[in-house]
Amino acid sequence: MFEQVSIIGCGLIGSSVFRALKKNSFAKKVITFDNDKSVSEIINKENLSDKTVSSPEEAVSNADLVLISTPLSSFEPAIDSIKKHLKSGSILTDTSSVKKGADAIVKKMNLKNISWIPSHPVAGTEKSGPKAGSSDLFRGRWTILTPDSKIKDSDVKKISLFWESMGSKVKIMSAGDHDKILSITSHLPHVIAYNIVKTVMGGDDEKIKKDFIRYSAGGLRDFTRIAASNPTMWKDIFIDNSDLIIDGINKFSKNLDQFKKVITEKDSKRLLEIFEESSEFREAIIKAGQDTDKPDFGRK
Amino acid sequence: MFEQVSIIGCGLIGSSVFRALKKNSFAKKVITFDNDKSVSEIINKENLSDKTVSSPEEAVSNADLVLISTPLSSFEPAIDSIKKHLKSGSILTDTSSVKKGADAIVKKMNLKNISWIPSHPVAGTEKSGPKAGSSDLFRGRWTILTPDSKIKDSDVKKISLFWESMGSKVKIMSAGDHDKILSITSHLPHVIAYNIVKTVMGGDDEKIKKDFIRYSAGGLRDFTRIAASNPTMWKDIFIDNSDLIIDGINKFSKNLDQFKKVITEKDSKRLLEIFEESSEFREAIIKAGQDTDKPDFGRK
Repeated sequence: MFEQVSIIGCGLIGSSVFRALKKNSFAKKVITFDNDKSVSEIINKENLSDKTVSSPEEAVSNADLVLISTPLSSFEPAIDSIKKHLKSGSILTDTSSVKKGADAIVKKMNLKNISWIPSHPVAGTEKSGPKAGSSDLFRGRWTILTPDSKIKDSDVKKISLFWESMGSKVKIMSAGDHDKILSITSHLPHVIAYNIVKTVMGGDDEKIKKDFIRYSAGGLRDFTRIAASNPTMWKDIFIDNSDLIIDGINKFSKNLDQFKKVITEKDSKRLLEIFEESSEFREAIIKAGQDTDKPDFGRK
Repeated sequence: MFEQVSIIGCGLIGSSVFRALKKNSFAKKVITFDNDKSVSEIINKENLSDKTVSSPEEAVSNADLVLISTPLSSFEPAIDSIKKHLKSGSILTDTSSVKKGADAIVKKMNLKNISWIPSHPVAGTEKSGPKAGSSDLFRGRWTILTPDSKIKDSDVKKISLFWESMGSKVKIMSAGDHDKILSITSHLPHVIAYNIVKTVMGGDDEKIKKDFIRYSAGGLRDFTRIAASNPTMWKDIFIDNSDLIIDGINKFSKNLDQFKKVITEKDSKRLLEIFEESSEFREAIIKAGQDTDKPDFGRK
């Protein structure tokens, strides 16, 4: 456990971390900072951390573990403001969804005697902000760590235990592997969700658009949920992981052209095969423990 | 209310209808038939209908309302087997997701003294079969009716009350409008969901495919849920509504190309605009009462 954990950025993810730490007592003291004063007011009112402070410098100076949970586009100024105030020997981590970009920013700072261990808890909902946080958000979900090989094993162990204390499973891999896997499992689905929402919104007249909304079936609703996630966070991800996302889009488009051909030819046999393969894939995901077969997908 | 309702095809939708009727007593007697004997055994064991019969002819001969709830590809043989046994003056309806195809099949039969009023309850889950049914499946959802203008108003009223008795809201429109709206709000999202699952499944090596499954984030999970729906039902929809679905795919591809350009150019401002528009669209859907803002979308 840690003497003091300091959290910079208290949105959905950051606030879920301090809610969980409050419950499991894995940190003796939790200090929080957020750029937005109204966020600190919520934290104070609901007594969610041990102390809210008014500057990032103040937050980190005594911390054994500093966790940055800002949008990626605020990550560099956040690091910049704390870099001279970090305690020697402390651990620095983050929660960003693209690891190569965050890693490059920190490396550039040339921090001494700081263990930089990037984290990505693969968890979330379409909600954002501190009120949306939950102490159970990470339970049963993966957190991926992408530390350099020269980082002390004992520090990697500490941060692993930190995420595990919140119910997360931990996996260590390279930043490159992380960004490749997430480009396909998370970023590409978001591209597609946004694009289908755009397709429904665009074209046609206002009357039929209203009908699209009114009679929207399950399929479309699921897409709008995905597409409604935090706009700033996703804008940052698309910029930071653009090359791999473009690769994914190109593969997707190629497959869509083939699929269109099958529909145009009304090829019953092939259509049935395609849909049965999809069901099998879903079963594999359920078996891998990333989903339940309940209709609400076991979401918190 | 009806003296006798007969239901041909007792999967997710058909079984949800007779579960609801059992609860609300809107029919004095409910007779059910399914091609699959094991389905009738389940119905008898759980006492879900008043009588299961062994032929569609037997099911319909005394019915005031006959509801066909088979996959579309079984719709024509089902209608063919009952057409000579329908009671004069009775109402015939269905639950199929594409209205023009079902309508053409029934018109070809040239039924006399039968009120054919096509229905589409826009409700469902990714599960299929009689065990997945629920008396609440239609609650708060739309049922779209597409009767010809020559159908008696009193019969249209009867079938409206039938769906309303199960908690559904009812809307009457043309089969053409229905198929257009659903091609965008339901069928296109399914094309896309299947295609993204295919994109993740295909390409790359087995090792990384396992990682795709293991670390699949929320976005991908939602797609696999959509893509896991009843393969036969969806195969039929894709064949029956192929022209409108192809139109939708073409619009989608055009938008995707534009979106790819924005990502390639790393255009922050435009990305943020796109994502904010999506959030607004979701809010419009929530306001239209087709979804809740709860993370499980209020699914049954």
